[in-house]
Amino acid sequence: MTPVVRVIGLMLCGLAGTMLIPAAVDAAFANPDWIAFMESAAVTGFIGGAAVLATHSDQPFNLNLRQAFVLTTGCWMAVTAFSALPFLGLGLDYTDAFFEAISGTTTTGSTVISGLDNSPPGILLWRSLLQWVGGLGIIVMAIFILPILRVGGMQLFHTESSERSEKVVSSAFDLSTWIIAIYLLLTGLCTLAYGLAGMSTFDAVNHAMATLSTGGYSTHDASFAYFQSPAAQWAGTVFMLAGALPFVAYIRFIKGEHRAFWQHPQIRGLVRFLVVSALGMALWLWLTRDIDFLDALRLTAFNITSVVSTTGFASDDYGAWGPPAVAAFLFFTFVGGCTGSTSGAIKIYRYQVLWIVLRAELLRLVSPRRVVLLRYGRRSLPADVPASVLAFIAVFMATVAAFTLALAGMGLDLETALSASATAITNVGPGLGPIVGPSTNFAALPDAAKWILSAAMLLGRLEIFTLLVLIDPQFWRL
Amino acid sequence: MTPVVRVIGLMLCGLAGTMLIPAAVDAAFANPDWIAFMESAAVTGFIGGAAVLATHSDQPFNLNLRQAFVLTTGCWMAVTAFSALPFLGLGLDYTDAFFEAISGTTTTGSTVISGLDNSPPGILLWRSLLQWVGGLGIIVMAIFILPILRVGGMQLFHTESSERSEKVVSSAFDLSTWIIAIYLLLTGLCTLAYGLAGMSTFDAVNHAMATLSTGGYSTHDASFAYFQSPAAQWAGTVFMLAGALPFVAYIRFIKGEHRAFWQHPQIRGLVRFLVVSALGMALWLWLTRDIDFLDALRLTAFNITSVVSTTGFASDDYGAWGPPAVAAFLFFTFVGGCTGSTSGAIKIYRYQVLWIVLRAELLRLVSPRRVVLLRYGRRSLPADVPASVLAFIAVFMATVAAFTLALAGMGLDLETALSASATAITNVGPGLGPIVGPSTNFAALPDAAKWILSAAMLLGRLEIFTLLVLIDPQFWRL
Repeated sequence: MTPVVRVIGLMLCGLAGTMLIPAAVDAAFANPDWIAFMESAAVTGFIGGAAVLATHSDQPFNLNLRQAFVLTTGCWMAVTAFSALPFLGLGLDYTDAFFEAISGTTTTGSTVISGLDNSPPGILLWRSLLQWVGGLGIIVMAIFILPILRVGGMQLFHTESSERSEKVVSSAFDLSTWIIAIYLLLTGLCTLAYGLAGMSTFDAVNHAMATLSTGGYSTHDASFAYFQSPAAQWAGTVFMLAGALPFVAYIRFIKGEHRAFWQHPQIRGLVRFLVVSALGMALWLWLTRDIDFLDALRLTAFNITSVVSTTGFASDDYGAWGPPAVAAFLFFTFVGGCTGSTSGAIKIYRYQVLWIVLRAELLRLVSPRRVVLLRYGRRSLPADVPASVLAFIAVFMATVAAFTLALAGMGLDLETALSASATAITNVGPGLGPIVGPSTNFAALPDAAKWILSAAMLLGRLEIFTLLVLIDPQFWRL
Repeated sequence: MTPVVRVIGLMLCGLAGTMLIPAAVDAAFANPDWIAFMESAAVTGFIGGAAVLATHSDQPFNLNLRQAFVLTTGCWMAVTAFSALPFLGLGLDYTDAFFEAISGTTTTGSTVISGLDNSPPGILLWRSLLQWVGGLGIIVMAIFILPILRVGGMQLFHTESSERSEKVVSSAFDLSTWIIAIYLLLTGLCTLAYGLAGMSTFDAVNHAMATLSTGGYSTHDASFAYFQSPAAQWAGTVFMLAGALPFVAYIRFIKGEHRAFWQHPQIRGLVRFLVVSALGMALWLWLTRDIDFLDALRLTAFNITSVVSTTGFASDDYGAWGPPAVAAFLFFTFVGGCTGSTSGAIKIYRYQVLWIVLRAELLRLVSPRRVVLLRYGRRSLPADVPASVLAFIAVFMATVAAFTLALAGMGLDLETALSASATAITNVGPGLGPIVGPSTNFAALPDAAKWILSAAMLLGRLEIFTLLVLIDPQFWRL
């Protein structure tokens, strides 16, 4: 496991460096909190550096499959454990600090901190940075690592990073550079849009980072509802969607393959779903309540995109829109964006594969001897993908059920337990009801529930199977 | 479609004959309701007879696959539509009458009738008879028809009725005779047990029919809670379980293959699950409430077996046991008994196949080049079963979600909408909360919700796909 420790050590050194940014900001605003960041950076940097030095080696760097699994989970856990340190300076205990940190690195966005409006700028920036870096980590993981690990049908996207014929750019290094550049560019554009819509520069930067990472941390307790500007809400809708699209598709778009971008099966699927849902619910709000249709559309477009893209910003308490909306938002929680984006949850392509399998299954029922070819987009579906995808969906549901039971075991009511479990595993952020709903925060939960939800966020972020293999005795025997 | 109409006509003639039983009972008790039964029998018999005569033919009787699908759904709908007629005599409108009838024939057990304790004996007997006949219909359908239709992985059980090597008896006729005899025998034993436990003969007969069919209709508004006898509750637990076991296994048992019975993978799985759940929840009740352990065990064993076997009797309002119990009972609703029984829901073997697929998937993640053999019990899993089973589970969940949304759209709260949708599709009976919970009835729901739930009950009973193919345009084009 030497190479695993080495990579985690390098990550921690990078994390220590990142902590200097909020330290500098707090120092510039003459806020004493900069000391907490410097102390955290020192501890993180020391341990990371020690790990790197202790595992120094002249041998070429190589990982086997088992190490890749351990590394993926290990990195996420180590980075989160240390990125929780600065929150201790705010007076949180380690349970709350870890919850806040993992909600950041997994781009979930559930928070236990209240009084955000009066918090030091450094800590607000730190929360946004965790989400932004976490978001980048997820894109990289989804493009380079998960297809090799073949988790939950991700082998379908193996071609994007490895096969000649469909390769977008020539090397993995080029691909990473492109991804980072696009992520930076979109974040910059979003900051600009928010600024033009009336946000302060600090708010614009922070919300842009939380938007593109589909994380959803805000610098205000009221979340996005703090900004009553329609322009800011429409900009948020557009850039949350941008964060939920496959980043490799952007490269094609920039290289001039506009048709390929718009005909990408996941992009078409997601955009269609959002348009139909937002229009449908806006129509319903317009018919049943005293509200202008365009205002209704802005509300539904923003909040549905927020939940479906797994961002979790709220511009209104949709829990108060009535039972149909409550049920609909519970199901929106499970949708998710496209793979290869910062988005979580089940994701569009798995529903598309499910639909393809279902159609084939119905066809086979009627004509059992017929050979049914399964096609996704313009290529045929690899033979092992349907079982992987369907097993993923089933295990995803079972995981939500298990976590719901665990939370209900602590006395939480069914709506709270179910929505909190779902929103954590899908990395959305807000749940439903008076305890974990969009207009509250998670501080009131018992400590044990916070650890359970922390585990749920990590499990969801790592597409469940990446973590599940580690607790499977078979994994360690082989 | 001539043979389809002919079989449905024959079924209706049989139904008309069955209506004479409650007519005779009501006449014997000098209750004027016997007229309603005679009128219903006349209408049903006339239409059934006309259908038989109109389709008279000397050609040999043969069904193709498409006709088999249409026949299965058509029979269930026609029988239900006519068996609703006697309820009109009780003063119900056709919506309520149809709901009551389909809740009977699908052995669900949700009721819209209150004042059962003072209802005429004929109508009470009719409700029990519908469940008893419905239960028999389901066993026959699961053994003879579904494996040929290959619905939801049922091809796994094709052997039980057709292949030489694993055949239990020599012909389909023998098999049917055995099944009916065992069903009658178990109902008789259950009646005897209930009688010995203190029920009146009328109550014992009715509850025995509702128990073996895992239907759950009672002759009292208080359901099984009316009988405070511990012996009756334990007898109920045993015979609800008996109704949820595969009936073909009983034949093996009677023929002396006791080992095969106890080693049947579904029987082992179900019994283990029930024992662990009942003991666990009894321990929890004992620790958290002022209750004797054996009383707690009786309560949990009865109510868990009732929900898992999809019977739906309630001996206590488990909705009042606290949030952990509410969440647990919601999940118990999805479990179901064994296939080839009268039980509904997802059923044990599908979870076992899911588990096998999941284990294989995890193994494949670690060693991608390994060939993993999938085995169920002592034989290997046919290649198309995993996808069928997983697609079934996914579609089952999607169906529950869709019906929940439809019910929430009528203003029902999330817990009511979700539990009512789940309890209808799984054919359990009671849901959760103040509107559809175990201590209430469904009368308060709006008419549209009753039709929606009627559709859900039928969909669940026909294992979803049997009905789904009929609304697939592909089905009619081929």
